[in-house]
Amino acid sequence: MKNKSITSRDEDFAKWYTDVVQAAHLASYSNVKGCIVMEPNGYALWENMQKVLDGMFKKSGHQNICMPLLIPENLMRKEGDLINGFAPEVAWVTKGGDKELEERMCIRPTSETLFSDYYSTLVKSYRDLPVKYNQWCNVLRWEKETRPFLRGREFLWQEGHTIHETSEEAEQETRGMLEIYRKFFEEYLAIPVITGRKTEKEKFAGAEYTLTVEALMYNGVSLQSGTSHYFGQKFSKAYDIKFLDRNNNWQYAYQTSWGVSTRMIGGLIMVHSDDNGLVLPPKIAPKPVIIIPIKESDTVNNYIDQVASQLEEKGIIYSVDRSEKSAGFKFAEAEVNGIPVRIEVGDRDLEKGVVTLVRRDTREKIEVAKDENIAEVVLKLLDQMQKEMYNRALDRRNSLTFEAHSFEEVENIINTHPGFVKAMWCGDEACEVKMKEIKGTKARCILEDAEPIDDNCVVCGRPAKHLVVWDIQY
Amino acid sequence: MKNKSITSRDEDFAKWYTDVVQAAHLASYSNVKGCIVMEPNGYALWENMQKVLDGMFKKSGHQNICMPLLIPENLMRKEGDLINGFAPEVAWVTKGGDKELEERMCIRPTSETLFSDYYSTLVKSYRDLPVKYNQWCNVLRWEKETRPFLRGREFLWQEGHTIHETSEEAEQETRGMLEIYRKFFEEYLAIPVITGRKTEKEKFAGAEYTLTVEALMYNGVSLQSGTSHYFGQKFSKAYDIKFLDRNNNWQYAYQTSWGVSTRMIGGLIMVHSDDNGLVLPPKIAPKPVIIIPIKESDTVNNYIDQVASQLEEKGIIYSVDRSEKSAGFKFAEAEVNGIPVRIEVGDRDLEKGVVTLVRRDTREKIEVAKDENIAEVVLKLLDQMQKEMYNRALDRRNSLTFEAHSFEEVENIINTHPGFVKAMWCGDEACEVKMKEIKGTKARCILEDAEPIDDNCVVCGRPAKHLVVWDIQY
Repeated sequence: MKNKSITSRDEDFAKWYTDVVQAAHLASYSNVKGCIVMEPNGYALWENMQKVLDGMFKKSGHQNICMPLLIPENLMRKEGDLINGFAPEVAWVTKGGDKELEERMCIRPTSETLFSDYYSTLVKSYRDLPVKYNQWCNVLRWEKETRPFLRGREFLWQEGHTIHETSEEAEQETRGMLEIYRKFFEEYLAIPVITGRKTEKEKFAGAEYTLTVEALMYNGVSLQSGTSHYFGQKFSKAYDIKFLDRNNNWQYAYQTSWGVSTRMIGGLIMVHSDDNGLVLPPKIAPKPVIIIPIKESDTVNNYIDQVASQLEEKGIIYSVDRSEKSAGFKFAEAEVNGIPVRIEVGDRDLEKGVVTLVRRDTREKIEVAKDENIAEVVLKLLDQMQKEMYNRALDRRNSLTFEAHSFEEVENIINTHPGFVKAMWCGDEACEVKMKEIKGTKARCILEDAEPIDDNCVVCGRPAKHLVVWDIQY
Repeated sequence: MKNKSITSRDEDFAKWYTDVVQAAHLASYSNVKGCIVMEPNGYALWENMQKVLDGMFKKSGHQNICMPLLIPENLMRKEGDLINGFAPEVAWVTKGGDKELEERMCIRPTSETLFSDYYSTLVKSYRDLPVKYNQWCNVLRWEKETRPFLRGREFLWQEGHTIHETSEEAEQETRGMLEIYRKFFEEYLAIPVITGRKTEKEKFAGAEYTLTVEALMYNGVSLQSGTSHYFGQKFSKAYDIKFLDRNNNWQYAYQTSWGVSTRMIGGLIMVHSDDNGLVLPPKIAPKPVIIIPIKESDTVNNYIDQVASQLEEKGIIYSVDRSEKSAGFKFAEAEVNGIPVRIEVGDRDLEKGVVTLVRRDTREKIEVAKDENIAEVVLKLLDQMQKEMYNRALDRRNSLTFEAHSFEEVENIINTHPGFVKAMWCGDEACEVKMKEIKGTKARCILEDAEPIDDNCVVCGRPAKHLVVWDIQY
């Protein structure tokens, strides 16, 4: 019964992943190196993610704007850390039409520079603060190795950029947006996440500190899934974002930025999907329900009409597959595309007085009396699936979360099966670098306000400062 | 009472336009030459336009996808007319990080090439057709002279690209999408449009023919506002989009593309706005209603709460301006931002048993008994405003639409006051070029199936083939 176009997840996880991406029509490779075509199913997922997140952003007082795609080199260079961090991976436009440009421009890898430049002209007084803007756009980073949704030269994301009167307010914003991301991952994507602070080595180029949302994939590898940065006055000094404060003195504004991207689609796949294709949490599925007639007849069609009007009444998005393909083919297609609930309607079932619902996540078949209100049954089922998918992901993560008390223990765990490894760290970059020797293990994040599990750093044995979660990553 | 930051429309239309753009916070100039920052009010308008159009596209069977931003030169050059048309105005990426690229890439000026390349791998049989995809994205054209929303190096748009089994189907799509644009302009933007075919000289590079939606601005200048192209098999031959037809023979697909852009925001401004700022048709206004307390008091606040709950019940989006600015200042701000209906709530009015509604379009003040259901009054008013704005725009257009029977007549009309000038044409490009001598007058479109108004071409006097609408343009 396994989908033949999909490699087994346990056999070759990387191959399984790209098989699912293609079989579920989420994306296909393009003739533009390192770039994908997001196909209808993939883009519809992104549209749904956008809709939910955009609502959350607007509710918390943010507005959308749109900045230019290109950044003149001179503007990009105003803040040293940022350009140093991004210079190796930006694409440069050097010609417009037939003319060499006087100043080359890069395609935005991120837009701190443009927002800062704009904010410097926008703000004059503390009365103009805070400014809380966001944009949905494409960005480009000249990556060498790419993988659909996880790492690509071009990707879609949102980048929020805010400026505030005080550091307290800006720090509150940094944490508030992290909280929105956490909520979105847990409540909509059914992905449990850990949150914490990036180390100095892993933080965003130019940030005072970076907070992160980290998720664990089915195979135990980590995915950095969203970040929220506190900049202090670093950019506002470089770009001259000044305002007159309440005492009529000039002050530099305090700044944040935060973003999530189409990478979340990769996370969704790698947490929930299986050997039969995509599995989607109902709350983010573009089409939660499909009705498939096993064989069309008047009885079947009448019953489908009845169910359809029940679904419409409850506002449940559904489709009916009346194409000429065989029922078996349609079932497989609905399955590979990750449609959460499939309603199979056949004459034999109806004669017995039942209709069959199939859950995509567990592939369980549920017989329901045909005279029940099917929409109500479906609503309850979708709700239950959403919760159970989260709980299964949480169980999986818990079973792949470890504590280590020595470097050897970290080594053993990662070499046996990767996962979140909690271990103490002295705060010294040398120890972080040493950790990379274990298959590239990195600090995912520092767990803030966590109880220490040891006194000493697992690498150097000196007194430890932080409890850190370590793992290999995408 | 005139807004001081806005030049008078009749005095200097061009200056008035950019004043409105800035005063209404639609866009501001950026430090990236030829590119703007779309500010919250401008972007919210675009979001609303997207929402309505996207709904129309989906309802007519289109799906969204996302193509790469960059096009390798070799791929771009496969169809000769397209590259010749766009070569002078594309931006070239020649470096990725520190490395010179082996093949330079251009930033998409439009994506026929990428869609065609993708479709060539997607389609194998007539059963796979039609494919009706659209994308919302940014594009770049290296324009020399730019004007916010009307012409910019970068703009946002949607580009639909479809392939079909037969020419009939593809031509039907080309016309169907033009009809959707017409409907959107008339019903939502309250802008009457003429539709027709572009001349060979003015059609899209690479198209068999181009259909267009043309609108007349307040000052009598034309704005090409949306286009729909029929490609026949031109791209499908260049990019090898082949399928097995019903007789098991290889066939090339028939193709279309169609697009509208943020340019529509420029059209909205230039058709409806006035010396006091932006005027928006209610159906496209991000926030159709604002409630302004003249001076806050318990009575005023209670009444506002009552109106607010009535508005919410009817699903009308509104805001309450409780900021510390003076009432006069708030009125002016609501006006410049083009909020269709302003509800002024004051103690004196309430004592008299009334509340004042102000229409933005006519600036008319309407006293309503305070005990009426204000939301119902507002709904009716918004509906009436929408219709009246369309009718006013139509009257204006009619008063600026002329018939000319000789070259001199065309010259006289355009030199006195530009507008749509209907005149016969022989079909010869030389006559079209001659027409340009009149301040750059161009053929807006050929009116298909129109009654001829003369036998001969107004330029050369030879037998005429088409009734054409001529005008100067943005």
